[in-house]
Amino acid sequence: MADRIYDRTPKQDGYRMPAEYERQKQIWMCWPERTDVWRDGARPAQQAYVEVAKAIRRFEPVTMLVNARQYDHARATLPPEIRVVEMSMNDAWARDTGPVFLINDAGELRACDFEFNAWGGLTDGLFFPWDLDDRLARKICELEMIDSYRTDGFVLEGGSFHVDGEGTVLTTEMCLLSKGRNPQLTKEQIECKLRVYLNAEKVIWLKDGIDPEETNGHIDDVACFVRPGEVVCLNEENPNSPFYQASQNALHQLSQEKDAKGRSLKVHRLCCPKEPIRLPQDYVIDNTETAKKRSTSDICIASYVNFLIVNGGLIVPQYDDENDALAIKQLQEVFPDRQVVGVHTREIVYGGGNIHCITQQQPEGISKENKERGKNYDE
Amino acid sequence: MADRIYDRTPKQDGYRMPAEYERQKQIWMCWPERTDVWRDGARPAQQAYVEVAKAIRRFEPVTMLVNARQYDHARATLPPEIRVVEMSMNDAWARDTGPVFLINDAGELRACDFEFNAWGGLTDGLFFPWDLDDRLARKICELEMIDSYRTDGFVLEGGSFHVDGEGTVLTTEMCLLSKGRNPQLTKEQIECKLRVYLNAEKVIWLKDGIDPEETNGHIDDVACFVRPGEVVCLNEENPNSPFYQASQNALHQLSQEKDAKGRSLKVHRLCCPKEPIRLPQDYVIDNTETAKKRSTSDICIASYVNFLIVNGGLIVPQYDDENDALAIKQLQEVFPDRQVVGVHTREIVYGGGNIHCITQQQPEGISKENKERGKNYDE
Repeated sequence: MADRIYDRTPKQDGYRMPAEYERQKQIWMCWPERTDVWRDGARPAQQAYVEVAKAIRRFEPVTMLVNARQYDHARATLPPEIRVVEMSMNDAWARDTGPVFLINDAGELRACDFEFNAWGGLTDGLFFPWDLDDRLARKICELEMIDSYRTDGFVLEGGSFHVDGEGTVLTTEMCLLSKGRNPQLTKEQIECKLRVYLNAEKVIWLKDGIDPEETNGHIDDVACFVRPGEVVCLNEENPNSPFYQASQNALHQLSQEKDAKGRSLKVHRLCCPKEPIRLPQDYVIDNTETAKKRSTSDICIASYVNFLIVNGGLIVPQYDDENDALAIKQLQEVFPDRQVVGVHTREIVYGGGNIHCITQQQPEGISKENKERGKNYDE
Repeated sequence: MADRIYDRTPKQDGYRMPAEYERQKQIWMCWPERTDVWRDGARPAQQAYVEVAKAIRRFEPVTMLVNARQYDHARATLPPEIRVVEMSMNDAWARDTGPVFLINDAGELRACDFEFNAWGGLTDGLFFPWDLDDRLARKICELEMIDSYRTDGFVLEGGSFHVDGEGTVLTTEMCLLSKGRNPQLTKEQIECKLRVYLNAEKVIWLKDGIDPEETNGHIDDVACFVRPGEVVCLNEENPNSPFYQASQNALHQLSQEKDAKGRSLKVHRLCCPKEPIRLPQDYVIDNTETAKKRSTSDICIASYVNFLIVNGGLIVPQYDDENDALAIKQLQEVFPDRQVVGVHTREIVYGGGNIHCITQQQPEGISKENKERGKNYDE
């Protein structure tokens, strides 16, 4: 019951992407299982995903999507209040493979289904093939009976941009101008796509993210909106950290930026883990030709910025690091009206992402299913 | 968010199976694809399923479940107003593999998830394995967030019984006492299961169905309730027909039966196709060891009784037979307030079933998802 829209854009139709802090209906997640991405049969990662899901479920409903062969296991492992739905996938990153939901002034929902190519396709993507993940957004929209805009020929992941819900987009050049995504498009053309698909007026381009080799610098490890006119930004003060330069550049630039409404941004600084997080010495994943290799000498991309905003709450990564409590404290000050809940996510970090990367919020709104109830049938 | 209930029964909890003529929310169907059941790559059967789905969709919503590998094809083949949802299955018989939905006096929904063994398991079942089909009801309940009663150790298919919604069950001994289902249970024990799981007071046992070799005599090719106190029954008047004896016995017995409320049943006679329907001479299906073989000398199980009642309508099999119009006319007289719509279903009959076998109605009612909206979360 969900239509696919190829020839129009959300901007034309009056739909916009709401900010994460607007009212949500539920959170979508995808169950991790591939043993060439997640160590030890994906069990430790699954346990971390379960803890994230349980933390979110304190605030709102959660649907966990799972490949058929893991359905029984996921259903038995998750608490009964988490909904489990079969869906075939290549990996488990709902932020980047799920739909980007949109809303109009009447409260009706639609979504963007951006082309997905595993963060760089055959150029520098992280696994092959990615066909099932590219279909995920469409299947979720179909399940929820929400019409979607499909952008064949325009690659974009949900983790590569943030919006304030009032016309401003935040992103990085490192990611959106990467060779593996849309090399045929100029920066101006890409900005135009963001404007029409997210229905925005202004795009703030940071230069770099902190993970050039993974997502090519997704913004969601660096900075995000916390309310209109205000952002949180990673503050790495240790000049020896590989994140130092990107963090300091972002802080500097954001403090001088104005948003679409002309407001100067208020920038809240958020600490980094004190100690760099590395893969454990006994870390092993299956050695396949189709997924990125990892080395125990790599520094993991562990940022407290990769939190998720939910109704009344905030779900924040924790690493058993000295700065865990400080991060919670800083975020509680930024979000005085939300409960801040920490979840240990090292095992998710080992796979290349974090809480924001593995979740996708669906705003409260009217789907076609809601409308369906009022439709006149032949009787 | 859906619980599994093992230690209680619907009767204990005040849930009953509503009759098919009570108000429905939607119809569930499963996309056919196996080439050892359906000829020519399942394409002709798929087309017939599409026509059935379209006919139902005139009256109410339809969800088509489909295996992952056929998702794109099914989505492209079905009209956009039919919802398509990925789900892994062994074959395509939602009546027998889907949940049997229940309702209580407050309008809340639950379901029975009876054990399924492909119509006879290793004794005389129609294919092997059947593990995915046995999980189907659970997955649908999970999707809809409806709690379900699971009956491990009690095998039952939705096509093997009908209810009047007021305490009466109609079934056949041929099927329910077959060796391939519950040989460890006596007739009295099986009747007790029907009473507690469907919440009924009286079980009317017909002796035989008309397809001993397929479903072992499902009732839904022979007779069904059309409203409380009234049934439609197959009327095969040709003594040379293999259906003659079962049909006449059923007519005779039903005309002498009383329902749970003590009403004598009013029996409406429904004609049979004039000509026996056989597999076409060029009929070929893949020859595997895991599914029942078919022969072009077999007479197909083609009954007009295998119709589906929907909100305001009736979806009735048609065979390009001389009696097609008569069947429509007879059913229109029985259901004067419903639109009677015929759909050509020979290709479904070739696979062993018909419209009722490939559909499962979900009554209007309150699921946990509805309730969820009112739940208090941590905020």
